[in-house]
Amino acid sequence: MLLTIAYDGSTFHGWQKQPGERTVQGYLEQTMTKVFGREIQLSGTSRTDAGVHAYGQRASFKADFGIPTEKIALVVNNALCAREGSESGRGGYAKSPIRILKAEDVPPDFHARFNSKGKRYVYKIRTGADAQSLVFERNYVYHVAEQLDTEAMNEAAKAFEGEHDFKSFEASGGNPRETTVRRIFSASVCGQPGGMQRIEFSVAGDGFLYNMVRIMTGTLVEVGLGKRKPEEIGDIIEAADRQMAGHTAPPNGLYLAEVFY
Amino acid sequence: MLLTIAYDGSTFHGWQKQPGERTVQGYLEQTMTKVFGREIQLSGTSRTDAGVHAYGQRASFKADFGIPTEKIALVVNNALCAREGSESGRGGYAKSPIRILKAEDVPPDFHARFNSKGKRYVYKIRTGADAQSLVFERNYVYHVAEQLDTEAMNEAAKAFEGEHDFKSFEASGGNPRETTVRRIFSASVCGQPGGMQRIEFSVAGDGFLYNMVRIMTGTLVEVGLGKRKPEEIGDIIEAADRQMAGHTAPPNGLYLAEVFY
Repeated sequence: MLLTIAYDGSTFHGWQKQPGERTVQGYLEQTMTKVFGREIQLSGTSRTDAGVHAYGQRASFKADFGIPTEKIALVVNNALCAREGSESGRGGYAKSPIRILKAEDVPPDFHARFNSKGKRYVYKIRTGADAQSLVFERNYVYHVAEQLDTEAMNEAAKAFEGEHDFKSFEASGGNPRETTVRRIFSASVCGQPGGMQRIEFSVAGDGFLYNMVRIMTGTLVEVGLGKRKPEEIGDIIEAADRQMAGHTAPPNGLYLAEVFY
Repeated sequence: MLLTIAYDGSTFHGWQKQPGERTVQGYLEQTMTKVFGREIQLSGTSRTDAGVHAYGQRASFKADFGIPTEKIALVVNNALCAREGSESGRGGYAKSPIRILKAEDVPPDFHARFNSKGKRYVYKIRTGADAQSLVFERNYVYHVAEQLDTEAMNEAAKAFEGEHDFKSFEASGGNPRETTVRRIFSASVCGQPGGMQRIEFSVAGDGFLYNMVRIMTGTLVEVGLGKRKPEEIGDIIEAADRQMAGHTAPPNGLYLAEVFY
């Protein structure tokens, strides 16, 4: 069985199950285990960090029980809302921070991560925000005080496209990996040229190194501020040195948008 | 000293301090007491319920110490962000759910509630929402599946204006009050006629009974659904009977927008 899952990562310590931490995987496995009366173990596509969101995380699990596939989303979503209601003390008013968008049958040996051909992330930035946005969007966008040159950022983003060694855009502390070469299918920045800008960086690729999208974003923001030129991206990639790239943008603006199979 | 405060009520058990509960007043008093090195007790204008937000709550306190008024917002906001960062485990990335927008000097006998001449609330509704909105806006709007007739709702809202006995729009369990008569200065509903509507009900008055705006909103939603006619509002008010009015809309769509002095 393959699930498509949206979640608000604000109140979770990331996707990956960890003892004593509130994580998306842990919360979902507990809820599903209770609903289905047998232990459920999920294999997620992507280990999103604490505070990172998902529009379309995927997770597979072995489902050798008799609940019709088309009922699974409804049953699990109801249980998620009931749990949130009881834990938040807001009862029937509370809605779940996690929502199953779809459940579908897949072959028994299908694995949400190993079978994936790539992923797309979206990173949301807001500039020159008012106090309301600073409070109510604090967990959902990266607030940058100054206006950003979105044309320069888009030009810089284009330089990420293709197959490159992205070592300059890798933070330490990630999982072991065979190579730091990744293929970026597409990368673009869109948003208004001025005012209180809402800017989105969308990037799709066959795989991403640890914190890669956040370091790409931090570097693009520095381009948008005029501190770096779009042409520098090629040199930064070439250097294969984390020190050459920009800062790591915060987790709260990052959304795992979709997974390709 | 008079503060203007914005807060995201999602993670709080309302404004009013209560032992063992995370409340806006309690959280803010603790933070300010630590920052100023002396006990701070706030008098808020309005006891917002759990899950209710504020764009412009007001709170007064005795400030007989030497911190310049214009520095107070900055100093308290920095402390609030630092506290959120340490308690959430997200460090410098975390932003505070509470923000002081302004601090101003007022006469020593000024009280944020007793001196107030009235308040304005905004209630936010979203119809026919997609899954993303159901997850990411779950704490910020009232999701209604069906489309609503905003013209009929606005016509109904107009019937709230003026001085009336609003007993039909009062929940039990509120504070003791001398009378259930209140003056509504203005009430209106705006929003798109169709599609995935974003609808706002704005209501200003000299005072509000317990859950009054939420019961008004629930009644307006029933008008928007065609279950009630705008002309019925007068009869509902006249009846002075809670059973005659509509359902109580959830807390998460409600915002204390401003306080009048």
